[in-house]
Amino acid sequence: MFKLIPLSAVTSVQGFLAGAINVGMKTKYELDLAILYCEVPCTAAGVFTTNRIKSAPVILSQGHLAKKRAQAIVVNSGCANACVGEQGLADASEMASLAATKLGISPEEVLVASTGVIGVSLPMDRVRAGIKKIELSQREGHSLAKAMMTTDTKPKEGAVQVDEKGVKFSIAGVAKGAGMIHPDLATMLCFIVTDALVDAQFLQSSLKKAADISFNRISIDGETSPSDCIFLLANGLAGNSSISFDNGEAFQEALNEICIHLAKSIAQDGEGATKLIEISVEGALKQAEACLAARTIASSPLVKAAIHGSDPNWGRIVTALGRSGAEVIEDKLDIYLNDTCVMKQGRPAAFNEEEMRMVLGNSDSVLIRVCLNLGNGKASAWGCDLSEEYVTINSEYTT
Amino acid sequence: MFKLIPLSAVTSVQGFLAGAINVGMKTKYELDLAILYCEVPCTAAGVFTTNRIKSAPVILSQGHLAKKRAQAIVVNSGCANACVGEQGLADASEMASLAATKLGISPEEVLVASTGVIGVSLPMDRVRAGIKKIELSQREGHSLAKAMMTTDTKPKEGAVQVDEKGVKFSIAGVAKGAGMIHPDLATMLCFIVTDALVDAQFLQSSLKKAADISFNRISIDGETSPSDCIFLLANGLAGNSSISFDNGEAFQEALNEICIHLAKSIAQDGEGATKLIEISVEGALKQAEACLAARTIASSPLVKAAIHGSDPNWGRIVTALGRSGAEVIEDKLDIYLNDTCVMKQGRPAAFNEEEMRMVLGNSDSVLIRVCLNLGNGKASAWGCDLSEEYVTINSEYTT
Repeated sequence: MFKLIPLSAVTSVQGFLAGAINVGMKTKYELDLAILYCEVPCTAAGVFTTNRIKSAPVILSQGHLAKKRAQAIVVNSGCANACVGEQGLADASEMASLAATKLGISPEEVLVASTGVIGVSLPMDRVRAGIKKIELSQREGHSLAKAMMTTDTKPKEGAVQVDEKGVKFSIAGVAKGAGMIHPDLATMLCFIVTDALVDAQFLQSSLKKAADISFNRISIDGETSPSDCIFLLANGLAGNSSISFDNGEAFQEALNEICIHLAKSIAQDGEGATKLIEISVEGALKQAEACLAARTIASSPLVKAAIHGSDPNWGRIVTALGRSGAEVIEDKLDIYLNDTCVMKQGRPAAFNEEEMRMVLGNSDSVLIRVCLNLGNGKASAWGCDLSEEYVTINSEYTT
Repeated sequence: MFKLIPLSAVTSVQGFLAGAINVGMKTKYELDLAILYCEVPCTAAGVFTTNRIKSAPVILSQGHLAKKRAQAIVVNSGCANACVGEQGLADASEMASLAATKLGISPEEVLVASTGVIGVSLPMDRVRAGIKKIELSQREGHSLAKAMMTTDTKPKEGAVQVDEKGVKFSIAGVAKGAGMIHPDLATMLCFIVTDALVDAQFLQSSLKKAADISFNRISIDGETSPSDCIFLLANGLAGNSSISFDNGEAFQEALNEICIHLAKSIAQDGEGATKLIEISVEGALKQAEACLAARTIASSPLVKAAIHGSDPNWGRIVTALGRSGAEVIEDKLDIYLNDTCVMKQGRPAAFNEEEMRMVLGNSDSVLIRVCLNLGNGKASAWGCDLSEEYVTINSEYTT
């Protein structure tokens, strides 16, 4: 039995505390420095950006995760601590040490994440003073969510409660998007916590799997930041017997669910976005081809602009599908917009275009379903529409 | 000796005639059906879309080019003749036959190209009447260029005259973009003609090479249409001894030059574009990596939006570079905007930001130079800025 609680904070999971403060790293007066802490040591896993340029916190945290243990995360927004030379690593390391000293743990058990402008050093004097002042409590989970935001218009949070054959545990997560792609603020950060007791190898494997079908399936504009990271901490306070590869199905499903929830929240809050677009591809020769097709359609500027204009322009969907690399046989191809068939066996299907425009115009979420009718491969991806506002945000942004 | 003549029509090359007419396939009263004809049979080559969904004219022309011979091209705009089932191939085949009958040649010697809305059949009654009425002459090259246009704001034409050690010949080309990416009108068509006598194998090889460093290096929005094609016809009237692999250097260079000229014209006229962006990547480990890096930066929405806003935001350039797949060592990386160094050895370089904003604001072309300092690989790519107008065009377009 799963129960998704959309707005629940990470501190809803037993043992986790959070705190946040404003030290003036963002232009507006907003929370910009935070700590997530667990009262007991946790098994930990991480997934990081594939960008060749990596921020200092990413490099530091990759090192700290070698032991698969962590007890705290310190995070700031407004400054990415990327492309600033050796000082970057020194500053990220000092952030971990400052948090460790405050919490009475080892610096290696602190993970660090930063998001914001590239090429500017952290204002360490303010970070030092700020970390000392942060007060941790179970009530401050939402403050942590806010302190991670950059061009996000709202925090992204949620929890899943699991009760599977008497084994009870919770998984909660907090993420920042996206406005993805915002210039230097394009970072995706996500922290997930659970009170389940989980084997370290399985924890890493399950996080990678969940990320592949959630965060790796969203596209705002195809950019990948040097700072992207996902951390998963498991503290074992639920008292369950250890979850691993042989008994991990329910945990994996619950983790997938929270990751998909957060990923969709990020897509829906893409810069300038007015609609969530879900792409469902089925009948592909292989699952990998279904995934390729879904991601290519989700990131097509033409498809995104058409949906923004409530235009049931399936020619753009076919065109993106055709260049995705997935095997397509035109005569077998069916395409649906929400529940309406717009292309049947490679030819235009009759539908009421005016009605479809009305429906698209009134929806804040649109489903594009592509049936390749070639095999059993299926995959979903999520994106958002492309609006003039996206361009305005990204061309008026000041370095 | 080369001489590029930017606005010259394809009919500036001896032996080639053209004619165009309006048959009402576009919403405005504009030329939309045309023929390019050579008085003598030509050796011919072609490069086609890599999209899995191919328009009927692409499939037909690929077949006709098997013999590496052609004497005419018939082209229309306003209807792509794609995704319409078997009728599409029948109509494309009839277009070739109609032109062949008019010209007294074999249908297999006619190539066909269509660009426009997907999923709508050609109005064959009007095409039949139109082809009969087209009048061919040496003066109508510019009319052909106009008849190919869809969301293009201007025709793209040019010629190169070659006089290399007494061997004289011309190469001329005509292309349509791009507003690339326009929804169903995203097609790139390009016809190139020459009076040189060229070996058929070499002609195909040289066209592929030239396309790889020109048309394959432009990005408006990363879309590929089911109708994209490039044809090259060589009539041999220059009286030169046959050009082939052993003596083809001057021909290849001239062909590269006309293709790069047309490709840049397409990029500069991208939908909503106000600036041409040239990306030059040097010092890559391999040429293929330089190409990957240049193309990724050229197609980054964030880079394109920054240039639109005259924002010297090098963080976005670094981010796109880092996700391109090319090897990057941060400490060796230098980046220049026009001639100004903005990043040196992976760290911010001091420059006058206000002055840079002024310069970018006043330019209709911007050079981004990336020096990886790792090897000898280099490549260029071209794109355009991303404006609110692009989104408006593509969300208000009506199927």
